[in-house]
Amino acid sequence: MRTTCPGPNTLAARAELDAFQETGALRFVVDVENSRGCYVRDVDGNVMLDMFSHIASLPIGYNHPTMLEVFTNPRNVATLAHRPALFNLPPAGYAKTVRETLMSGAGLTHVTTQMCGSCANENAMKQVYIAVANRRRRERGGYGAGDVSEEELSSCMVNRAPGSKPYKFLSFHGAFHGRTAACLSLTHSKPTHKLDIPAFEWPIAPFPRLRYPLDDPACAAHNAAEEARCVKETCELLDADPDVVGVIVEPVQSEGGDNHASGAFFRSLRAECASRGVKFIVDEVQTGCGASGTFWAHEQWGLDDPPDAVTFSKKMQIAGYYTKADLVPDAPYRVFNTWMGDPGKVLMLEAVLKCVKNDGLVENARVTGEYLREGLHALSRAHAGKLHNVRGVGTITAVDLDSSAARDDAVDALREEGVDIATCGDRTIRCRPGLYFTPKHARVFLDAFDRVLARSSG
Amino acid sequence: MRTTCPGPNTLAARAELDAFQETGALRFVVDVENSRGCYVRDVDGNVMLDMFSHIASLPIGYNHPTMLEVFTNPRNVATLAHRPALFNLPPAGYAKTVRETLMSGAGLTHVTTQMCGSCANENAMKQVYIAVANRRRRERGGYGAGDVSEEELSSCMVNRAPGSKPYKFLSFHGAFHGRTAACLSLTHSKPTHKLDIPAFEWPIAPFPRLRYPLDDPACAAHNAAEEARCVKETCELLDADPDVVGVIVEPVQSEGGDNHASGAFFRSLRAECASRGVKFIVDEVQTGCGASGTFWAHEQWGLDDPPDAVTFSKKMQIAGYYTKADLVPDAPYRVFNTWMGDPGKVLMLEAVLKCVKNDGLVENARVTGEYLREGLHALSRAHAGKLHNVRGVGTITAVDLDSSAARDDAVDALREEGVDIATCGDRTIRCRPGLYFTPKHARVFLDAFDRVLARSSG
Repeated sequence: MRTTCPGPNTLAARAELDAFQETGALRFVVDVENSRGCYVRDVDGNVMLDMFSHIASLPIGYNHPTMLEVFTNPRNVATLAHRPALFNLPPAGYAKTVRETLMSGAGLTHVTTQMCGSCANENAMKQVYIAVANRRRRERGGYGAGDVSEEELSSCMVNRAPGSKPYKFLSFHGAFHGRTAACLSLTHSKPTHKLDIPAFEWPIAPFPRLRYPLDDPACAAHNAAEEARCVKETCELLDADPDVVGVIVEPVQSEGGDNHASGAFFRSLRAECASRGVKFIVDEVQTGCGASGTFWAHEQWGLDDPPDAVTFSKKMQIAGYYTKADLVPDAPYRVFNTWMGDPGKVLMLEAVLKCVKNDGLVENARVTGEYLREGLHALSRAHAGKLHNVRGVGTITAVDLDSSAARDDAVDALREEGVDIATCGDRTIRCRPGLYFTPKHARVFLDAFDRVLARSSG
Repeated sequence: MRTTCPGPNTLAARAELDAFQETGALRFVVDVENSRGCYVRDVDGNVMLDMFSHIASLPIGYNHPTMLEVFTNPRNVATLAHRPALFNLPPAGYAKTVRETLMSGAGLTHVTTQMCGSCANENAMKQVYIAVANRRRRERGGYGAGDVSEEELSSCMVNRAPGSKPYKFLSFHGAFHGRTAACLSLTHSKPTHKLDIPAFEWPIAPFPRLRYPLDDPACAAHNAAEEARCVKETCELLDADPDVVGVIVEPVQSEGGDNHASGAFFRSLRAECASRGVKFIVDEVQTGCGASGTFWAHEQWGLDDPPDAVTFSKKMQIAGYYTKADLVPDAPYRVFNTWMGDPGKVLMLEAVLKCVKNDGLVENARVTGEYLREGLHALSRAHAGKLHNVRGVGTITAVDLDSSAARDDAVDALREEGVDIATCGDRTIRCRPGLYFTPKHARVFLDAFDRVLARSSG
């Protein structure tokens, strides 16, 4: 570190931005050209180990040659320089590209691309509404999509029943699913996201608050009971209201504090949804693309029946969602917008997937995550009482400190030690490094954290 | 034209996409490499004059050298290859780029970038809610943003009052403002957008249904009365419900049928909002970036007081919104998401603005629009009874046919003549060419339309 961070050049750039933009969330200004791999360099020349990774969205670090090659390969220029209305006028060769990237190894049959994680969740929910409405039309003896009344057509135009449906999605306390109106109605992690914004009054179930480590037999009884309670309350909410047509859940509640649950919990949820005809969406916006130690975190649950939809964004570079075939809308233009994704971002995903495959990055995340947690457990023993609840899947790993203040101090001190790291919940540090983060990098972090904890008053 | 369109190669590509994507909206597959300027070439070798322009989103046509240069300039590689969390970690030099692009000539003081038009509208609305809530706190004798009760903080987490507000936005019948939940609640153009999707029950005012041409003295009395009626009903809706905190309107209702209103109408709306403290958002997603004959269509209204917010996307390549300073949130992270825009798309906007400036494209749109409407009036006289209601600003020009069927037949026949053009409303053809569309191109279209109309049964 050459200066404190934010340093003088960041502060000058921030002042420039302040003239026309809200800048309260600015951490520091990045010297992108001179950042490399897992190390970010700021405009003051400070070089930091990046365990924040642009809110878990930077997949393969800075200036990876395979990513740079996307933008230096003359064959890509025409595609990159052209933003199409993708569902009206796709470019030549696009089906092949999608098949070899998004559809390669996908557990579900269909994919719909979007521009961001919120739009992925918003539109996945819409596909659920449409499918459920058509199923109910058939159940009433109608013939599905064709059986729409004039009253439905006219009333939906003015946002009223029966055309606009009173359907609801169930989400969990502590969840984060985005910030547009329907997504924000599913989000329950921090008041700052929600205060003053209108929302749909949809049901909210408890998410398990487990004791860690999950594999510690001393925690087993409490955790099993806690998960059973949460499943039971979820079922009661579903049974109380037939308008609840979907459930959405994160594999790891990230913004809400890195809260985990067991595979058994998610298998129960999935089964309870299936038995009621309630659609089950897994939001892998933060957990997808390998960092969990499997490509999708939900692969670790051992589901018999896959989710009805899986949403993605962030490290995937392109946003969107997979669905089963029965969620595909019955007609064009029911789920639609101008861009419907971006072929240029699919080329970026192609580069990411090439690295994932060639360099074994999913396995790397699994191995590095174990190393990271072993190291955090060791620090927890060495600095008794200062660290709690080491937990994680892959490098999606977290640890609690004693208080918000202790956590914030530690994060500041880590940055002075040259490690930029993320927070979540009230008193949690979350590790969100990129996919090239190895035990060597974890060691750098653990050593820095050791020094920080030794200096802290506890 | 070498084949009918869609031709065999499009159909083959569509079958490939069908395996994993809903393809009902697919027009044809584009041979991007071999498309040039205002002419699009499909994968069957058909070359068409492009008056659809990817739903009015392609600003400077295909493979413009200035746009290609963005992706061949080695100086841009690091920026393009890196998707940052822009409001946390902006890249070096970003303030200068935004100042010289988005803020150059902006009528409002602040800008917030987003990933698409829906997210622009969703987040602009949120900034209105936050500003109004804080103003009301101050009016109650509180001290604004700091004066938030514990009850507000806890209730907002479960989507309930008083933390979640019952605030509403007023929109207009026939409007289109996007497809995410809050945007879709503002959209009232076609049932296919809205059927089965939950919505907020917000007030909807009538949008003027004018007689054209607007400058025809024979239409003046009807139009003035119609606009007065719409303003009056809007005021009644605003006065009936203090929870209506904002009004959103398009300069030209595009998806809804290319419905225009006069500058006087918009000036009245703006003034009625201002006098009530209701915020006034102009949605320029489709009309912005020069095609109206001014850079922003609302510049033609002669407002004394600019809109509180102006949203944009499409031709701008980057989405977002401008606001007045009083709409900037009081704290960071209240309006936020991971990407908050995309610096690579700002580089694309920079290329567009360079062309707009160097080649006088705003003036070109004004001149070409006049030529286009003169030509349509001439066709309307030559083919008596087949064309109605020629109208437009710049190249955002439209004409009605007798029926949906007649309109759809004409569009199909135009495509056989080598012109791909857009529709809207029930029986409208809308011209949405790019900014390099000149009277020479308009002549090609008008001659083709002349042949189509001569053949039609009327």
